[in-house]
Amino acid sequence: MSEGIQFAARTTVEQVEEGNELAPKFDQDGLIPVVTTDYTSGELLMHAYMNEEALKKTIELGEAVYWSRSRQVLWHKGATSGLVQKVKALLIDDDQDTIWLRVDVMGGGASCHVGYRSCFYRRVPVGEETKEKGLSLEFTETEKVFDPKDVYGDAPNPTKL
Amino acid sequence: MSEGIQFAARTTVEQVEEGNELAPKFDQDGLIPVVTTDYTSGELLMHAYMNEEALKKTIELGEAVYWSRSRQVLWHKGATSGLVQKVKALLIDDDQDTIWLRVDVMGGGASCHVGYRSCFYRRVPVGEETKEKGLSLEFTETEKVFDPKDVYGDAPNPTKL
Repeated sequence: MSEGIQFAARTTVEQVEEGNELAPKFDQDGLIPVVTTDYTSGELLMHAYMNEEALKKTIELGEAVYWSRSRQVLWHKGATSGLVQKVKALLIDDDQDTIWLRVDVMGGGASCHVGYRSCFYRRVPVGEETKEKGLSLEFTETEKVFDPKDVYGDAPNPTKL
Repeated sequence: MSEGIQFAARTTVEQVEEGNELAPKFDQDGLIPVVTTDYTSGELLMHAYMNEEALKKTIELGEAVYWSRSRQVLWHKGATSGLVQKVKALLIDDDQDTIWLRVDVMGGGASCHVGYRSCFYRRVPVGEETKEKGLSLEFTETEKVFDPKDVYGDAPNPTKL
């Protein structure tokens, strides 16, 4: 699978920063971090990881495929929930060690296993505000888009303490 | 320093996901990934890391302070370049292991050491497009906002092969 896609070797800083060859850098665990935002709203939906195979599959399919660190499997997002992420743009950063996916989410538009639209549904006060309010988190989404029990049933919760 | 700010201990999944206590999870290196977007445009500016002290300082100052993995120092963004990132919103995700900073960039508005506005200035073709065009990266920014030589002089380039 994905035998058609080959990444370039990293040879010089100029090639990596200013060239047009895709030469991604995977970390010591073979992973590259991925930032996924909603194409229309710009909202941050997820922060996840890909390995080499996941990145190749994402490019091939035009749909987000991650590497699940908790389950240690390739994770075609939406395979369980139906909330497939169609890739509208895939960007790579200056030193090619981070991916930015801009996606349209199919189905109800939720991306978070807790049931919210975004995984980032709580705000931390900063600066002067902290002095007044303390560190108490403020919810920016108040209603869930789906009930996780209906979608995931008894599957184990991915959150680790 | 930052002695006023204390994070909560992580006790239950419900507390972490649905509570209003800030109980961030740092990885085995003591770091938490941070996604930084432009408050106005929603554009992804950076993907970086904070340690506990950097997160506390960011909350205290209301300005982005990261941990530089390449230099192994606290990194008050903009201290060299003047391009300070004012935090308009700091959000944390469901399992509290990722930070989303929404910032206004002071000065010229650039965030990338190569001189572009965003670090993500190249697009990778996906799906059908790849079959037509191959994997050649396409520049989404064509003009640099600043000349890195003027700003950083002879400081070593942070990009590692």
